[in-house]
Amino acid sequence: MGKKLSKAERQKALKEKIEENPFLIDQELAKIFGVSIQTIRLDRLELNIPEVRKRIRNLAKDSYSKVKSVSNSEIIGELIDIELNKSGTSILETNEDMGLTDSRIVRGHHIFAQANSLAVAIIDTDLALTGLTKTKFECPVHVGERLIAEAVVQSKKDEKFQIEVTTKVKQDRVFNGEFIIFSGGRLNGEVKKRADSR
Amino acid sequence: MGKKLSKAERQKALKEKIEENPFLIDQELAKIFGVSIQTIRLDRLELNIPEVRKRIRNLAKDSYSKVKSVSNSEIIGELIDIELNKSGTSILETNEDMGLTDSRIVRGHHIFAQANSLAVAIIDTDLALTGLTKTKFECPVHVGERLIAEAVVQSKKDEKFQIEVTTKVKQDRVFNGEFIIFSGGRLNGEVKKRADSR
Repeated sequence: MGKKLSKAERQKALKEKIEENPFLIDQELAKIFGVSIQTIRLDRLELNIPEVRKRIRNLAKDSYSKVKSVSNSEIIGELIDIELNKSGTSILETNEDMGLTDSRIVRGHHIFAQANSLAVAIIDTDLALTGLTKTKFECPVHVGERLIAEAVVQSKKDEKFQIEVTTKVKQDRVFNGEFIIFSGGRLNGEVKKRADSR
Repeated sequence: MGKKLSKAERQKALKEKIEENPFLIDQELAKIFGVSIQTIRLDRLELNIPEVRKRIRNLAKDSYSKVKSVSNSEIIGELIDIELNKSGTSILETNEDMGLTDSRIVRGHHIFAQANSLAVAIIDTDLALTGLTKTKFECPVHVGERLIAEAVVQSKKDEKFQIEVTTKVKQDRVFNGEFIIFSGGRLNGEVKKRADSR
């Protein structure tokens, strides 16, 4: 930010910034506005804006109740937004367990798991299974970074969905994937048949 | 098997069968030879062939010591064979935690995780990261089924490996994936740079 804002200006801008991107942590906001973290905390208190975890929890509350294809515990990350058969967003806080010991780089399959479970979750059906995927791990993710995945249904033909998932750390795109997911009743029959034959 | 084998014939065939495919469980062997599970157990005792878990553990013992790119706990499944920069095999016993609650179908990302960690493990380097993947989930896997993944290096150019991973349940192919993995020193520098900039 160029010139120094007055307190009122800063609080107005802070409110807008958080509405635009509820995932910003106090540290990031402090950097954006060129003030201390303590100042941001006081601003939030005065504006009655909860801290980031609470903000995310509020967003999440409604999302889970809409999901049909998987149970809540089956989504990798926290689901914070969903519009069935259209789109969805989830966040995953990465931790030590997800990283390589030496380099502390998050393993690709954790990033894939978040994207895959989100792609399945947004489909309006009882049973949805991943058929094909094409993924690109665009740059390394470090332990502790927060992954924000957005899934968008690109096309739907009969029981076949094409879904694109893009995952970011802050503003950086770290992963992009195309998921072909099959859903519906016909699948149910086929799955049963295979289970019996093995 | 057509005609009934004598005990000596059966034991000879059993020994060959297990050498050919050490993953066969007693139940499967009983079916192949048209005898009871108890008979197979007695045959193994007489032939001094350990049970399947012990056979797999014996295969695994040497494999882990060769891996450089990841620590042992970072391989999803049990590594049972490895030839650095060439090929590798791992097995994953699927359990309830990996499946969808209702359909008991194993989630795609667990199958992906086994394949991805195997592809990385076989590379002869300190640091290897997944860049691109193309995968096909060919048929559903049910909780309790044993996944056998085989990775083969298709090509290597400078620090870029193309690896194909095929995963089977018994004789059925359930997954096929192409993994482009980057390795080596140049990567180390790039990873550090990104970590510092975020």
